[in-house]
Amino acid sequence: MATCLSIDPPDIEALLALNPRIKPYASLVPSAQTKKNKKQWKRNTDKKCGTCGPDLTNDFEDIKHTTLSERAALREAERCLKCADAPCQKSCPTQLDVKSFITSISNKNFYGSARQILSDNPLGLTCGMVCPTSDLCVGGCNLYATEEGPINIGGLQQFAVEVFKQMQLRQVLSPEVLPPGERPESFSARVALLGCGPASISCATFLGRLGYTDITIFEKEQYIGGLSSSEIPQYRLPYDVVSFEIDLMKDLGVKIVTGRSFSQQDLTLKSLKADGYEAVFLGIGLPQPKKIAIFENLTEEMGFYTSKDFLPRVAAASKPGMCSCKSQLPQLSGNVVVLGAGDTAFDCATSALRCGARRVFVVFRKGFTNIRAVPEEVELAREERCEFVPFMEPLQVVLRDGRIAAAEFCRAEQDETGRWLADPDQVNRIKCDYIISAFGSGLTDDSVLAAMAPLKLTSWGLPEVDTVTMGTSEEGVFAGGDLAGVAETTVESVNDGKTAAWSIHKYLQSLHGIPIPAEPRLPKFYTDVDSVDLSVDICGLRFPNPFGLASAPPTTSAPMIRRAYQAGWGFNVTKTFSLDKDLVTNVSPRIVRGTTSGHTFGPGQSSFLNIELISEKTCEYWCRSITELKHDFPDQILIASIMCGYSEEDWTKLAKMAEAAGADALELNLSCPHGMGERGMGLACGQDTELVRGICQWVRAAVKIPFFAKLTPNVTNIVDIAKAAKEGQADGVTATNTVSGLMMLKSNAVAWPAVGHETKTTYGGVSGNAIRPIALRAVSAIARALPGFPILATGGINSAEAGLQFLHAGASALQVCSAVQNQDFTLIDDFCSGLRALLYLQTMPNTDDWDGQSPPTPRHQLGKPVPGIKQIIGKDLANFGPYKEERDRVLAEQHKAADLLARQPPARQVVKPTMSVPSVADTIGRALPMIGAYNELSNQEHKVALIDKDMCINCGKCYMVCNDSGYQAIELDRKTHLPLVNSDCTGCTLCVSVCPIIDCIKMVQRDTPYEPKRGMPVSA
Amino acid sequence: MATCLSIDPPDIEALLALNPRIKPYASLVPSAQTKKNKKQWKRNTDKKCGTCGPDLTNDFEDIKHTTLSERAALREAERCLKCADAPCQKSCPTQLDVKSFITSISNKNFYGSARQILSDNPLGLTCGMVCPTSDLCVGGCNLYATEEGPINIGGLQQFAVEVFKQMQLRQVLSPEVLPPGERPESFSARVALLGCGPASISCATFLGRLGYTDITIFEKEQYIGGLSSSEIPQYRLPYDVVSFEIDLMKDLGVKIVTGRSFSQQDLTLKSLKADGYEAVFLGIGLPQPKKIAIFENLTEEMGFYTSKDFLPRVAAASKPGMCSCKSQLPQLSGNVVVLGAGDTAFDCATSALRCGARRVFVVFRKGFTNIRAVPEEVELAREERCEFVPFMEPLQVVLRDGRIAAAEFCRAEQDETGRWLADPDQVNRIKCDYIISAFGSGLTDDSVLAAMAPLKLTSWGLPEVDTVTMGTSEEGVFAGGDLAGVAETTVESVNDGKTAAWSIHKYLQSLHGIPIPAEPRLPKFYTDVDSVDLSVDICGLRFPNPFGLASAPPTTSAPMIRRAYQAGWGFNVTKTFSLDKDLVTNVSPRIVRGTTSGHTFGPGQSSFLNIELISEKTCEYWCRSITELKHDFPDQILIASIMCGYSEEDWTKLAKMAEAAGADALELNLSCPHGMGERGMGLACGQDTELVRGICQWVRAAVKIPFFAKLTPNVTNIVDIAKAAKEGQADGVTATNTVSGLMMLKSNAVAWPAVGHETKTTYGGVSGNAIRPIALRAVSAIARALPGFPILATGGINSAEAGLQFLHAGASALQVCSAVQNQDFTLIDDFCSGLRALLYLQTMPNTDDWDGQSPPTPRHQLGKPVPGIKQIIGKDLANFGPYKEERDRVLAEQHKAADLLARQPPARQVVKPTMSVPSVADTIGRALPMIGAYNELSNQEHKVALIDKDMCINCGKCYMVCNDSGYQAIELDRKTHLPLVNSDCTGCTLCVSVCPIIDCIKMVQRDTPYEPKRGMPVSA
Repeated sequence: MATCLSIDPPDIEALLALNPRIKPYASLVPSAQTKKNKKQWKRNTDKKCGTCGPDLTNDFEDIKHTTLSERAALREAERCLKCADAPCQKSCPTQLDVKSFITSISNKNFYGSARQILSDNPLGLTCGMVCPTSDLCVGGCNLYATEEGPINIGGLQQFAVEVFKQMQLRQVLSPEVLPPGERPESFSARVALLGCGPASISCATFLGRLGYTDITIFEKEQYIGGLSSSEIPQYRLPYDVVSFEIDLMKDLGVKIVTGRSFSQQDLTLKSLKADGYEAVFLGIGLPQPKKIAIFENLTEEMGFYTSKDFLPRVAAASKPGMCSCKSQLPQLSGNVVVLGAGDTAFDCATSALRCGARRVFVVFRKGFTNIRAVPEEVELAREERCEFVPFMEPLQVVLRDGRIAAAEFCRAEQDETGRWLADPDQVNRIKCDYIISAFGSGLTDDSVLAAMAPLKLTSWGLPEVDTVTMGTSEEGVFAGGDLAGVAETTVESVNDGKTAAWSIHKYLQSLHGIPIPAEPRLPKFYTDVDSVDLSVDICGLRFPNPFGLASAPPTTSAPMIRRAYQAGWGFNVTKTFSLDKDLVTNVSPRIVRGTTSGHTFGPGQSSFLNIELISEKTCEYWCRSITELKHDFPDQILIASIMCGYSEEDWTKLAKMAEAAGADALELNLSCPHGMGERGMGLACGQDTELVRGICQWVRAAVKIPFFAKLTPNVTNIVDIAKAAKEGQADGVTATNTVSGLMMLKSNAVAWPAVGHETKTTYGGVSGNAIRPIALRAVSAIARALPGFPILATGGINSAEAGLQFLHAGASALQVCSAVQNQDFTLIDDFCSGLRALLYLQTMPNTDDWDGQSPPTPRHQLGKPVPGIKQIIGKDLANFGPYKEERDRVLAEQHKAADLLARQPPARQVVKPTMSVPSVADTIGRALPMIGAYNELSNQEHKVALIDKDMCINCGKCYMVCNDSGYQAIELDRKTHLPLVNSDCTGCTLCVSVCPIIDCIKMVQRDTPYEPKRGMPVSA
Repeated sequence: MATCLSIDPPDIEALLALNPRIKPYASLVPSAQTKKNKKQWKRNTDKKCGTCGPDLTNDFEDIKHTTLSERAALREAERCLKCADAPCQKSCPTQLDVKSFITSISNKNFYGSARQILSDNPLGLTCGMVCPTSDLCVGGCNLYATEEGPINIGGLQQFAVEVFKQMQLRQVLSPEVLPPGERPESFSARVALLGCGPASISCATFLGRLGYTDITIFEKEQYIGGLSSSEIPQYRLPYDVVSFEIDLMKDLGVKIVTGRSFSQQDLTLKSLKADGYEAVFLGIGLPQPKKIAIFENLTEEMGFYTSKDFLPRVAAASKPGMCSCKSQLPQLSGNVVVLGAGDTAFDCATSALRCGARRVFVVFRKGFTNIRAVPEEVELAREERCEFVPFMEPLQVVLRDGRIAAAEFCRAEQDETGRWLADPDQVNRIKCDYIISAFGSGLTDDSVLAAMAPLKLTSWGLPEVDTVTMGTSEEGVFAGGDLAGVAETTVESVNDGKTAAWSIHKYLQSLHGIPIPAEPRLPKFYTDVDSVDLSVDICGLRFPNPFGLASAPPTTSAPMIRRAYQAGWGFNVTKTFSLDKDLVTNVSPRIVRGTTSGHTFGPGQSSFLNIELISEKTCEYWCRSITELKHDFPDQILIASIMCGYSEEDWTKLAKMAEAAGADALELNLSCPHGMGERGMGLACGQDTELVRGICQWVRAAVKIPFFAKLTPNVTNIVDIAKAAKEGQADGVTATNTVSGLMMLKSNAVAWPAVGHETKTTYGGVSGNAIRPIALRAVSAIARALPGFPILATGGINSAEAGLQFLHAGASALQVCSAVQNQDFTLIDDFCSGLRALLYLQTMPNTDDWDGQSPPTPRHQLGKPVPGIKQIIGKDLANFGPYKEERDRVLAEQHKAADLLARQPPARQVVKPTMSVPSVADTIGRALPMIGAYNELSNQEHKVALIDKDMCINCGKCYMVCNDSGYQAIELDRKTHLPLVNSDCTGCTLCVSVCPIIDCIKMVQRDTPYEPKRGMPVSA
């Protein structure tokens, strides 16, 4: 043969060099060689490198381990078990409904998630970033009992609220709050809050939500946010976040006055009362640093700072938009000693590195087992190569030429009784150029103390506070945050404010003689999204929302349907019932987990298989239940699912009974794929157009109420069956029932489920996400063939996002089963808020490039933005080994050279809809014009793959799939492992399909015509 | 009404108390209350608790964070990206093919995984447990670039080899090695290895695998294993593991002689030579502790140990089976100071706690940024509440009454140039009762040095070693491990031994004048499993194994098929080709990721959807390629996939061309679900029995070679179509092609894939795991209807495990596409070893209760065994908050009271098959007798759920699903969150299906007859 068709040409051979091969022998590389080789590929810091790592000067970018990109957030949210009576919520000071907000993230309902968070915690974004979660929500996570460990709750919280922030929505009042004109006088009471930190912001927000209209926060500084602004560094909490949360508070009409202090010279409790303030909330924190005697005469010029001096200076320089108080960063150099072992000490340590410190020593009196800071904070400082020196009590500071030269310590030791003793004879000296003391803070300012009169104080000089109400000794005066003595964290301060808000409400209403309920009723967070109407009319019935429970295990009994209505489901379809002569008895086991998504155990099953029959309950049970339920839930829809054999008499009798009981509509189960078919019922009737038409005609003759034929997907052409139902005058169809399947066999050839000692099985019904493509196809095919014919969709509707797909494909309402099996009835809340958001966001000018609730993926790694390195230095760099070092160097130089003070804050933009919000009816069938036959597709407009090298994680999945399932059109660099798409790309899209990073590979327009490689000339 | 059917009775209401509900308002609990509440639910250690944590005395149970249960191993393995040119392998000293062994774990082929590991590393289990992976394989993991972080490679390695260990198989020689009689004389050369530690074990193993028959390891101690036995603590490396690996070595005939030392008094290089040893390997380690002057006269009685004294004493007491040298644990008390910052120091620290130390201080000269130990080791000590004291150089030991009372240190500091200086004026004292020095070790014993003569030594007194060959200055003398100066870890010692083995082989063969290849050819690990025959005869064709590539993207071109054969695929089916008049051109995009398993990005897609057409290449291209390929791969099967319209002439012509080209068989594509149908091809022909029968008849008339009709699942009854094919004299069928579907719509109603500016789509073919239940059903239904009629199965065959399911369901061979799209052609290696193991294990008496390669799940949490607490104290205890404290207390008391020395080692059992290994043919259709109609299932043998409270992680998923999709038959305790199944359980199995922990819930026989709750009396 001239050329060998089946042997690759040399260029392809070369390209394949890195493609995996099977090794016939063990590999052999001497250890000394591997020691060198591994440096090329190293992703983590070399443990032998004591001082390496990038220069951090001026680098104020996010350093949190918890920050998540969308991909990672979805993964993490999916991993959450959404436990019953979840301990995370119980350990959160604000009682965040953690599992609900994670469920919503998992369902790509980021709006719903943020709404859950902000409902309980108006500083939800701040807390997502700075909460010491290991000591709070995460500490109780049941996944601690598994190898993969607890959920990154803080990161998920941050992610959800950050996406919400990008939605640029305003906070509005709850619809329960009476309109201004109708609200009692009591809501006009003047309320003053002192100090614009987390406690006051929270308190004011809840008062605003309750409907109070005259709320003012007084802040002594020119900036707002309290410690969040002044002390928590930008790389843990950007100012932008603080300002976003304050803006949401201002949406409720809360006023802020800066430059007004709570002190004898300005505002006092007495003066506020005199000015007509009926309630006062003290949230001024503890403003003075604790200092020890040996630091008495030290100054900044000498190299001494307290954390209370140092951190605000760093903040002012590094936080764009914080205030007009901008000043340069403190300039440090050489060795810096930080004293203390609380979170603030570690913030000082990592900040010092950014101010030019060469080395930082965090020195503390006790040991590591007693450290106050949370592990995650300590870890950040450790990673940035701060040194820790325990068991050291400061003794004196050594000065040279008027500047700090060293710190002297004596050794501290704990005796057998646990007492700490310092031995003045054991003296240690650490050479240093700067000392930052971070010993906490207190309230020692006499003028502030005077302003608090006549409050009773504790022995520590702080107001006496009732920890249940946050009330002080004075009626109408409340306190929260550091000043109140309970809160040790931002989130506890927030909760103090929340608690106080309810107490203030109770107090103010009692002043006006208005009784309020004993159980707190603090309104949740609302925006315009929450008022989107989800109702839809189908066959003359008004469904309050399009989500209902399918005829399936979730509607096994009438009390379950009752609970589903109470939760908010728009409709319910009863478990299918029959005439008593056809009563069934189930086998066991009968509902098993799907194996379609690999080794997933626990919730989030992509499928279930069941061999459960119809209801075991009698016809009378169901008819009486229908009557009861319709009586109690007249505005929600109840559909009776019924099944008979192919008998006119039976169908007529059963349909009439269900109608007489009060069902809004009927669903004819013509599709159960297991068990019933053998009795001539279910699918046995549903695979034949004649039978379907006939049954529908009988039922049409029997009842006036609408009815839907529930179709099986186990047919050659479901459209033919739907047409037959229509011809039989059904009012619509349900598409589809489960797909017939055999889920799995164990290795001994026994199936699961295996029944009885014979371990027999039968084909069952597959449900859940795995069958969604089949159901979507069925729904859209029926909708295309029978425009306007109502379809109740079912099959993998596990979220509002999936629900919208079915609406777009032509469904009018949406039935759910597997998603509830994976979770519980409360899902309806997520589905409704998710669908509202999806509808509302379509009207927003700022979300054009979003996919539903997903904003466009920014160029990032580990959830943190990465700059396009090629634009900076003209070449791509990988993110490991020598390339990472070079990248770090380049970026460190950029940071160093940057003018921090020149950076502008982003301005808040509140966006308004550009059109009216579509109704559910508007969305039905929207996708149909774009679904067509293959020959309607353009084969002139090809795409090719384009890979973003900065986001690439160098796994080479694109390369392998292109080699072994594609066109050998991606080269992988031997050293940098950066992939490069060559001109052989045919646009098949497999590389995108297997890339682990969302949007790292994009399909872009091909710029040359596509010429297929025919291999040989085409014969005439 | 008398009673309300739709309202739950009070007992159910009470049971529902913890079921999730939607909150109408924000929640409110004062912060002070939550501070208390959270203690009830705490899973992690309270950060404020400086000295809490259980008493560890006598507790030698596994403390590794990396240990994984099967569930967790499967999860972690699934997460691995299986990168191209994977950096993990490049950073492993033994060059373990990490991604391949992880792929096998992911495919539940634990045998294949262990075989990969042991092939490159005979101490694969030891290294899985003790490797400092963060500095090796894990350090290069590309997943460092994602939020979820790198893979727990050590844990996976440990898991796979541990399961293999339970298989109780022997190592055998590679089939490539000549039988004893035929092996050249050179393989009888005597080889001596000194020191039975990791380096020698590895070296001897590889020499054994190469075929050497006279290998002896001399060990001076009475126990074997070297440092693995004497110094690494039981809780990191049980002795059992060491002995398992040594047994595998002994399987190859390696002899071990204990009590013989390498020293002037016993064995020397000269004496060995004199005794006829042609090659010697020195793997004696560095036996003497480094001691500093101030410890010169200290004794154990005074409270002083070196790590070299201390750890072997601990080992001897705590390692059952290690030796007859048993002695009590060293008894410590009070404060213990450990000196050093290497891994050994931390092992001493955690061991000291187990010997009774109250507090342990690890004191070291440099800072945390210079610590030598790997972070994972330091972390274990930190967790166990050891204290760390940096910057301390030992100065003197203070004695009181002849016992250690304190240690004195001076402060060490690093100057600007990086030099370390100690200041004798800065003296610190730590009160302590014991000092353990862990300063490393050396070789100072003159008698050993003398035994090494005439080796050249380095300036450090160690043999000069060529780091490429591990040869010394003397021909025939090799060295490895600590002695050789390169290795710093066990795995590097192993690799030294491996490297030396090849050098010794080269040397010995050269002595006998036998040339060996330049590229090392070290045999892989073999057992009897590897000789299982996988061939299967179908229609007179012998398939070397049942796995082949389907007609799909992986067979796009002839060179790809060539590569697939080279990798070992048993057969290939060409991409479908047509006559040139029917040539197609694809659109783009056309193959997209499945959304059926949630937010999975990257490999491991549970499905793909494609709208790709048949091959774009010409008929002649394929015919010539077939000829070439059959010429080069006569023993592997090549099937030509062809497609025409409904034309006898076309089918006849194309079938004859393919036959003439040399194809072994034909596959008639009667099932492509997209595009081709509109041309009257593909599925358009395959949904009609008449057309199928006719086409088969035409092809039967045209060709002599076997042919298979590829069927579509998109029909009402696939069995009818298969029957038609059989009637048309097809030799068999392929079941099934892809399932027609619409994968997803974006939120703007545009589908993915969307083609061209009109963003149109069409229904595509869904492939992969999501359709496996459909394909399994199709295959088994055809096999039941047409016994003996060959079926080539396809649809979600992603592993040997899935493949076996299809064989059991009646398939004769197995076609693969999506799994290759997710990975690459090397999968075949895993599939074959996996299937061999599945077949072989069926014959083993010890695997009766296994599911394939999965041993029964032991009662565990976090992969570590948990005792049944109820058997001990008569009640269940949860694993959090106060219950965990109580549990810890109970178990600590058990440990304390236990007699360590009384524990017996498990004896090795090598199990032999009890029957001959089944062939592939034997497995075909094995499940069919157990698949039947629903009414064949027993509805008298019901099951109920039984929950293991010790394994339970208290998530309450069982409770929620039973409430909202079941029967309200599980109670959840309000305080302990332990679930309890009540008598209302109907055995539906949903609780098992959603439980995240494998085997935590089991379905057990019901002991009362099942009586369905009919709700109302049944009407007559």
